[in-house]
Amino acid sequence: MIKGSILIGSRDEAGTSFFSAIDPSTGEQIEPRFGSADVSDVAKACALADAAFDAYAATTPEERARFLETVAENIVAIGDDLIVRAMQESGLPRARLEGERGRTVGQLRLFAATVRQGDWLDATIDPALPDRQPLPRPDLRRVNVALGPVAVFGASNFPLAFSVAGGDTASAFAAGCPVVVKGHPAHPGTGELVARAIRDAVAACGLPEGTFSYLPGPSIELGGALVADPRIKAVGFTGSRAGGLALMKIAAERAEPIPVYAEMSSINPVVLMPAALKARGDALAPAFVQSLTMGSGQFCTNPGLVIGIAGDALDRFVAAAGEALTGAAATTMLTPGIHAAYDKGVAALAGHDKIETVARGCPASGANQAQGALFRTDATSFLADAALGHEVFGSSSAIVACRDLAEVRTVIAGLEGQLTATLILDEADEADAATLLPVLARKVGRILANGWPTGVEVSHAMVHGGPFPATSDGRTTSVGTLAMARFLRPVSFQNLPAGLLPPALAEANPWHLSRRIDGTVSRPA
Amino acid sequence: MIKGSILIGSRDEAGTSFFSAIDPSTGEQIEPRFGSADVSDVAKACALADAAFDAYAATTPEERARFLETVAENIVAIGDDLIVRAMQESGLPRARLEGERGRTVGQLRLFAATVRQGDWLDATIDPALPDRQPLPRPDLRRVNVALGPVAVFGASNFPLAFSVAGGDTASAFAAGCPVVVKGHPAHPGTGELVARAIRDAVAACGLPEGTFSYLPGPSIELGGALVADPRIKAVGFTGSRAGGLALMKIAAERAEPIPVYAEMSSINPVVLMPAALKARGDALAPAFVQSLTMGSGQFCTNPGLVIGIAGDALDRFVAAAGEALTGAAATTMLTPGIHAAYDKGVAALAGHDKIETVARGCPASGANQAQGALFRTDATSFLADAALGHEVFGSSSAIVACRDLAEVRTVIAGLEGQLTATLILDEADEADAATLLPVLARKVGRILANGWPTGVEVSHAMVHGGPFPATSDGRTTSVGTLAMARFLRPVSFQNLPAGLLPPALAEANPWHLSRRIDGTVSRPA
Repeated sequence: MIKGSILIGSRDEAGTSFFSAIDPSTGEQIEPRFGSADVSDVAKACALADAAFDAYAATTPEERARFLETVAENIVAIGDDLIVRAMQESGLPRARLEGERGRTVGQLRLFAATVRQGDWLDATIDPALPDRQPLPRPDLRRVNVALGPVAVFGASNFPLAFSVAGGDTASAFAAGCPVVVKGHPAHPGTGELVARAIRDAVAACGLPEGTFSYLPGPSIELGGALVADPRIKAVGFTGSRAGGLALMKIAAERAEPIPVYAEMSSINPVVLMPAALKARGDALAPAFVQSLTMGSGQFCTNPGLVIGIAGDALDRFVAAAGEALTGAAATTMLTPGIHAAYDKGVAALAGHDKIETVARGCPASGANQAQGALFRTDATSFLADAALGHEVFGSSSAIVACRDLAEVRTVIAGLEGQLTATLILDEADEADAATLLPVLARKVGRILANGWPTGVEVSHAMVHGGPFPATSDGRTTSVGTLAMARFLRPVSFQNLPAGLLPPALAEANPWHLSRRIDGTVSRPA
Repeated sequence: MIKGSILIGSRDEAGTSFFSAIDPSTGEQIEPRFGSADVSDVAKACALADAAFDAYAATTPEERARFLETVAENIVAIGDDLIVRAMQESGLPRARLEGERGRTVGQLRLFAATVRQGDWLDATIDPALPDRQPLPRPDLRRVNVALGPVAVFGASNFPLAFSVAGGDTASAFAAGCPVVVKGHPAHPGTGELVARAIRDAVAACGLPEGTFSYLPGPSIELGGALVADPRIKAVGFTGSRAGGLALMKIAAERAEPIPVYAEMSSINPVVLMPAALKARGDALAPAFVQSLTMGSGQFCTNPGLVIGIAGDALDRFVAAAGEALTGAAATTMLTPGIHAAYDKGVAALAGHDKIETVARGCPASGANQAQGALFRTDATSFLADAALGHEVFGSSSAIVACRDLAEVRTVIAGLEGQLTATLILDEADEADAATLLPVLARKVGRILANGWPTGVEVSHAMVHGGPFPATSDGRTTSVGTLAMARFLRPVSFQNLPAGLLPPALAEANPWHLSRRIDGTVSRPA
């Protein structure tokens, strides 16, 4: 099933240059070799996507939902080959990847249910008021339509859930947009297996072939050409800040600028409130270290910053966390490049004269293994050097000791935009926490209490987003059903003859939608 | 009441350099002189807006609605002074400005009602599932919050409805954002009267003074500094393409890029479908010319392009439209600069060797008067020169004759993004029109049938927006209640103690909101 192909609509292309996957646990290449997509492949895929757009965007909710469900069924049908290949290419353990497959498939099914339900269309009708003075009101009807073909850049750290058939692809499909995926070169076999599952679903559902193309490859030009292609109307990206910024720049400089939804970097501050810290600081430490080291810390929601008020309770927490980390096994990171960047970032913190190394995890015993790192500093030092607030992707976290709550607030106010912030608090902390909430809310997309930020639920109420530079567009989420909104735009129809109205706005309401009529939501009969 | 002041929160500042309004009907300066805001005023206004943000964003729907209504009441209370001053500064007639005041006040009240109703909060609750396998689901609650202080650039062509208290300001206030207005230098007296009405409402409602500031001035640096200020989190703009593009560039190059909602340019294609053209082309012509010349054509929805199939019926329409335009009076344009740009744009079309001048309106008899212009060309010529598709702001329109429906489609497909497209059609045209709709929907924010695009209803279903370059962000509207969405972002709360939840998400539902619970909208008891 893995042929090393580039998938342009329904055709396999071999490519003219080639690359290979690396098993990060050994550093060795894995067979087969893969064709590298190039700019001519971009043009072909985008032309097909553009040609497919009208037909795919016009599918009914039922047709589109069935397509999403078929993609899910086809991914399940790949069976264990998918898990084995993903383990080889990512170094991630079986249980994690089986869980991620479940999440990926569940996400596709949740979008299918959401598409069928139809509220995302936001169907809105202001009936004509022909006798209104001084001027009559026309009949006005508004509905959301698909934005156009979408470019998706898969992430390295979720080879299933944030990659070829991940959240960006699922939400773009749900919105009615054809998708061209730029496949991540770290897991090309996994990517191809999933890409074939999607392509088979396109064919089985009778959709135009351009609904999906898959362009694997390691070159930076490939991604740039995809974002620059005039037929692409939006971009979904999860990856590094440098990568996201580069795509934002290309998108902004196009003849027609387009939205880029880039999820880039976050250190996810955790605030240890005084009463909770005093009452249960020892018990909190192992849970913190578990969140820090899970999946080698390769989560965008990894807790990279812990903020507390200096004192005995914080010292005990630091000591307990250090002890827990000292026993944490070294684990394989996703790629040699990510591992090298992690080591470099940790070394920079360890060598910083205002930073104390609290503990390191177990030393590496194999290729590309991360040795966890926990640091400590004070608020004055942290505030004095912006570099201390930058993400080190992997199991690295810094504890910042503040003089008092006012200094906690100052540290938070000085942070860049983040995906999450966490409050560890007891009842006695609530009044103080209430004063921090507005400061936190300005900075993040999700505020948690008494948990750890790793673990992102795929649901209606989830926001996996946040102000720049956590993402390129803080008005959105890349996880959860609201992610669809990124790929929709509203169109209004004024006095259109009944026969020309889209079904969502037709008087007979054939899709049984809840619709806002004259300002009030009306449920279908 | 007009002192020529800069309004920084609750303080009047005199300024250190000065400018004057011009009566475009005479070209003469009008008293008094106005202080020009400068970059130090920008910094002061933005600091106050930032300081006001938490408190203003935390107002209840009722408090915020009362503020919007108080602004409306205060604008009405200015009385005829406002109309007289706006007539002097804009050259627009009394009836138009009285209508525009009604629209401005009605818009504020519509937003007040919408804020009270509360659906804009999109309150969404996914209750905890503690027994779910393999992992429990946390309690997740999502709500929309205000983006931050907003910079608003008023438009010259609607000195009330798209200016100091226009749609951008009203929707930003409705969303919970403090506003700093960069006042348009063409109507500073009108602007100051309205700014004082807003400031009085801020005080009367007990809001922090930084909720609103008003920075009048003619300098380009002023606007640039406002968009560049790190405390500004979004921009609303209505004006020229060059102006909008300049602000987009500044916003994209900030350390923290921010969204710019710029409404820039549109020629609003009107397609005359064959059966309608044949049956009633003569009758359509005067209505078209009325739409073309209304308000000297100074509308972003002015019909600047008419597309039809060549033949006798189109010739008769052209002749009748030419006759109607020949008798159309010359009317005063908004500013000498706009008038000069109009004359230059019309002269360029008149001198184009592939363009025929069908008719001109009555010659000017006073300063800055526009003499309407109607041109004709064929599709081949139109498609060959992109400049023919650029907006000439004012009463200028080109009729493009196509060979057949396929060429009509080609002309539409070649257009830039537009605010509107109009289909003039009879029942016999509906099948053909249906084939044009997907092509039109890609290009515009609003599709009209059997009307003219001028006249933009302020309602729930309105979209006054469209793909670039009609606007900078085709996912939005600047008119209608959906305009609020531009200034909101979602925040999610996970396992927050009940006492810390925002009211919109509290279990008791104190604001009586419809909320989406576990995917289904639940109305308040």
